[in-house]
Amino acid sequence: MRKVALGVDIGGQSVKLGLVNTRGKILQESSFLTREFLGRKRFFKELKRSIEALLRASRRRNCRVTGIGIGAPGPIDVERGFVYFFPNIPGWRNTPLKSRLEKVFKMRVCVDNDANVMALAELRFGAGQGVQNLIALTLGTGIGGGLVVHGKLFHGPSFSAAEIGHVVIDERGKKCACGSHGCVETFVGTDYFVQEVKKRLRSGQKSILNQWLKSSGRCLTPQLVAKAARHGDSFSKKMWEETGAHLGTALAGLVNVFNPERIVLGGGIAQNGNLIFKPVVRTLRKKAFPIASRSVKVVRAALGVNAGVVGAAALLFENS
Amino acid sequence: MRKVALGVDIGGQSVKLGLVNTRGKILQESSFLTREFLGRKRFFKELKRSIEALLRASRRRNCRVTGIGIGAPGPIDVERGFVYFFPNIPGWRNTPLKSRLEKVFKMRVCVDNDANVMALAELRFGAGQGVQNLIALTLGTGIGGGLVVHGKLFHGPSFSAAEIGHVVIDERGKKCACGSHGCVETFVGTDYFVQEVKKRLRSGQKSILNQWLKSSGRCLTPQLVAKAARHGDSFSKKMWEETGAHLGTALAGLVNVFNPERIVLGGGIAQNGNLIFKPVVRTLRKKAFPIASRSVKVVRAALGVNAGVVGAAALLFENS
Repeated sequence: MRKVALGVDIGGQSVKLGLVNTRGKILQESSFLTREFLGRKRFFKELKRSIEALLRASRRRNCRVTGIGIGAPGPIDVERGFVYFFPNIPGWRNTPLKSRLEKVFKMRVCVDNDANVMALAELRFGAGQGVQNLIALTLGTGIGGGLVVHGKLFHGPSFSAAEIGHVVIDERGKKCACGSHGCVETFVGTDYFVQEVKKRLRSGQKSILNQWLKSSGRCLTPQLVAKAARHGDSFSKKMWEETGAHLGTALAGLVNVFNPERIVLGGGIAQNGNLIFKPVVRTLRKKAFPIASRSVKVVRAALGVNAGVVGAAALLFENS
Repeated sequence: MRKVALGVDIGGQSVKLGLVNTRGKILQESSFLTREFLGRKRFFKELKRSIEALLRASRRRNCRVTGIGIGAPGPIDVERGFVYFFPNIPGWRNTPLKSRLEKVFKMRVCVDNDANVMALAELRFGAGQGVQNLIALTLGTGIGGGLVVHGKLFHGPSFSAAEIGHVVIDERGKKCACGSHGCVETFVGTDYFVQEVKKRLRSGQKSILNQWLKSSGRCLTPQLVAKAARHGDSFSKKMWEETGAHLGTALAGLVNVFNPERIVLGGGIAQNGNLIFKPVVRTLRKKAFPIASRSVKVVRAALGVNAGVVGAAALLFENS
């Protein structure tokens, strides 16, 4: 019987589930939209139904399911599998997710933060294979971070490590959602990025984006700014240059402190290749100590949208 | 026979040596002035002589010396005991200190960075006892950092981790000796601190320091600014307030990433009690995530000038 784990990736948009083998391959998957099952009871019922369906599928496939791994946003007590709250799912305060699911399914359940789960997926099956010390970042609306130390996820004593988006790089900078000022997230998070572009355009700076936004009614997104940059638009190139430099500055500090072998960048912003990677790496090399900066590689995440499910399943392979 | 290790603390000013027992107590010590033995050959000869004297003393005391531990400034390959260079001792480039001393003394030699050694001393015998994850800072001309993860010193794959002074907190800030801009060291390092005070006084800001410096020909030091602050001088109080806030900002970022249980502050600047600790802790609580910030204690280093010798000796107890 082939050994698999059932991975669950709970996101604000959708919940994805998959049977994952020990090489990180998804054998079968399913998903449902988070907003169609709001409320703790309805959500839990649908989650249970989806897990049951995959467990049935595993029996048809002659697989042995070693347990259920769950990646979820927000702060989580990893040891107890306790979810303090889901940022995008109302009603899910203080839920003992692990013990509830273990009771229902009579199998081992591991719960971890979605950013940690992504880091684990990249470590075991993606761009982080073969290293012992790694920083993984998911660049989205917020910046999710995962930290691997000595080949294992590092959670910290109160399970709140790796909040890499909230390293301050400009004390005098903008207010951050976290309450601090000038966190790297206020430069690199997509909402902040888009806000900054809008502000600059409104102030009269010249860019092809002005025409694009008027003529086609297109929405301003980082992707559009990336397209404009590739089109040769200096304004947009400068935006990416600066955004990469801000991220590079934060990473330089982390490289000086943590001396990782690899930094894995995933999420929407990281899809823009050299536009973001070049200034990140240039700044990192310039600002970090030579010994540390020479020994770190900055690479793009390899697993994309599957990282959540694969990493959640990988939690089971870690601890078994 | 009592087990001891011979600890050597190589500093820019002096080299201190001591026989240290397994409870971190110095049984016998000696020292020499670094500048009186400049040059690699002369230095090494004096180091050898001093070690020999303590080894003789250990036999008189009926102690078994398990080995020699050395803490030295600058970058070090901990595994090979290789010193790339000593910042303050000319001629010491690329010295295989471990293998040379092992050959001479036929016993185990461990070499580590002085800031790591201080962190280890505090972890085993000082203000860091009983925790698994710790950040230790020595606040001097530079900021030395040590990182303890899962109860052990964390060096990173190229042994350059824990350069905590070189976390950027103000991208737009002053140029740092490391080449970057706005590192926390440019706010908290004593030279920068004194420079900033001078600049402000020259610009006409009112302070009792103006009189003190004129009337008695006293030298401007952080200690003098601390004295003025305790005397009620608003200018000086504000200097400490700001310096503490800068350090607190850097620590908030590190607490968000690393979620340590304890932060140990040592060195000259940390001697100024609440002047520095209050704004550090206030800023940390304000800027770090609540879960992480609630679970960390900021404390003063307990071992003072002995931390170097005790920590260097402790390297032997770690690995034996």
